[in-house]
Amino acid sequence: MTKKVILVTNDDGIYAPGILALSNAMSAVGEVHVVAPLAEKSAVGHAITVSDPLRVTKANRNDKFFGYAVNGTPADCVKIAVKCILGKKPDLVISGINQGSNTATNVIYSGTVSAAAEGVILDIPSIAVSLTSFSIQEFEYAAKVALQVGKQVLKKGLPPRTLLNINVPAIPEKDIQDVVATRQGMGRYEEVFDKRTDPQNRTYYWMAGKRMILDKDDDVDDVAVMNNKVSVTPIQYDLTHYEFLKELSTWKIRP
Amino acid sequence: MTKKVILVTNDDGIYAPGILALSNAMSAVGEVHVVAPLAEKSAVGHAITVSDPLRVTKANRNDKFFGYAVNGTPADCVKIAVKCILGKKPDLVISGINQGSNTATNVIYSGTVSAAAEGVILDIPSIAVSLTSFSIQEFEYAAKVALQVGKQVLKKGLPPRTLLNINVPAIPEKDIQDVVATRQGMGRYEEVFDKRTDPQNRTYYWMAGKRMILDKDDDVDDVAVMNNKVSVTPIQYDLTHYEFLKELSTWKIRP
Repeated sequence: MTKKVILVTNDDGIYAPGILALSNAMSAVGEVHVVAPLAEKSAVGHAITVSDPLRVTKANRNDKFFGYAVNGTPADCVKIAVKCILGKKPDLVISGINQGSNTATNVIYSGTVSAAAEGVILDIPSIAVSLTSFSIQEFEYAAKVALQVGKQVLKKGLPPRTLLNINVPAIPEKDIQDVVATRQGMGRYEEVFDKRTDPQNRTYYWMAGKRMILDKDDDVDDVAVMNNKVSVTPIQYDLTHYEFLKELSTWKIRP
Repeated sequence: MTKKVILVTNDDGIYAPGILALSNAMSAVGEVHVVAPLAEKSAVGHAITVSDPLRVTKANRNDKFFGYAVNGTPADCVKIAVKCILGKKPDLVISGINQGSNTATNVIYSGTVSAAAEGVILDIPSIAVSLTSFSIQEFEYAAKVALQVGKQVLKKGLPPRTLLNINVPAIPEKDIQDVVATRQGMGRYEEVFDKRTDPQNRTYYWMAGKRMILDKDDDVDDVAVMNNKVSVTPIQYDLTHYEFLKELSTWKIRP
């Protein structure tokens, strides 16, 4: 059997600790290629770079070649990796390990998930992995989950246009209650804009917010994580609201 | 009856021609507030600005106050408009008129659609409007469609977490065949990276691509537009792949 080719990327940047843990773990099942943003690119959504040139540079970690850094977004990294660096489709795209959860509404803001979504658009089985803390940097268990789910995906494949979005609670492994298949929740941030005045006496705003969990059922990503479970959500990109489509057809939409 | 409050935004920037046509049209049915990016923000996906301060400045057009410009993304504009400028939820968020189509896979890269998606996240009925040409600037008919669909949405509302994504062929009104309710297609760009060398002899890449329509059915957004029809697609943001969720529950995903 030829060795599986695995593309590892992220949105925290090629020098983040999470991507090192992930690439180390995935090397147990395949030939790992790292192509990731040069700089941190959180909350970029599914942005791509069409108005600026992209540059690719080699990046070392621990004095060894680690991968390729791209001055673009996570989605850019996947596109340029497939077309210009690998020159072929990998067997798996895996993005992470992100610091901070990507559950519920956050899925659509997430750079981590957008890299996996780009894999999906290119017809490559893809996974996004997040650790639900901005400060805790214990990636060992999350990397184990990524490896286990990755093995399953390499063996069984995924339906067309589908990725798996993994969120791992940032708690010791012994406190993890389960690993469960979930659906995407409705939870979102309640934004607060902190209004300030700069030294030139001009107003500016910082966006901040408080997380709101709007679901109760244990099969929802947010709720599972809150209950110390690893959440694995299958995500797909046909956004059509089929049920409402029938009713819309009866609306007077011709001017 | 109190006047309806309408938030108009876009991703081509507050000085683009399309947003002027849209705000003029929508003023027929409500009190229009324009809050839009200062600079062009195409292909930003659902990016939000969390690492930089946001600034809001007044913008004139034709020597009259036109609206507020924000140094951020379309999603930022909707958030800051609701929280800090209007200070309340509008009755409708409408984004556009974009130059260039936002059908099929482009929906997930689109800044225009992301503004409407932000409206959806905030529980506001929302619409995205695009004219399918980067060069033709005849917005009159597209504005008429936006107004007609907008009226219907203000009257009937939309299901939770749903927006309408309108794509208007850039052809004379007399050649328009119909206005139809559609589903999102699978079409995507086939990327090509143009590899060049800069004056310092360093390599860089321009991302470009060729549009591929991968559907044939006339009820698909891409195909409708190709057949000179206005496409109106209901888009929702629960991305869970429910069908596959059952199978995933049987996978060995515990490490």
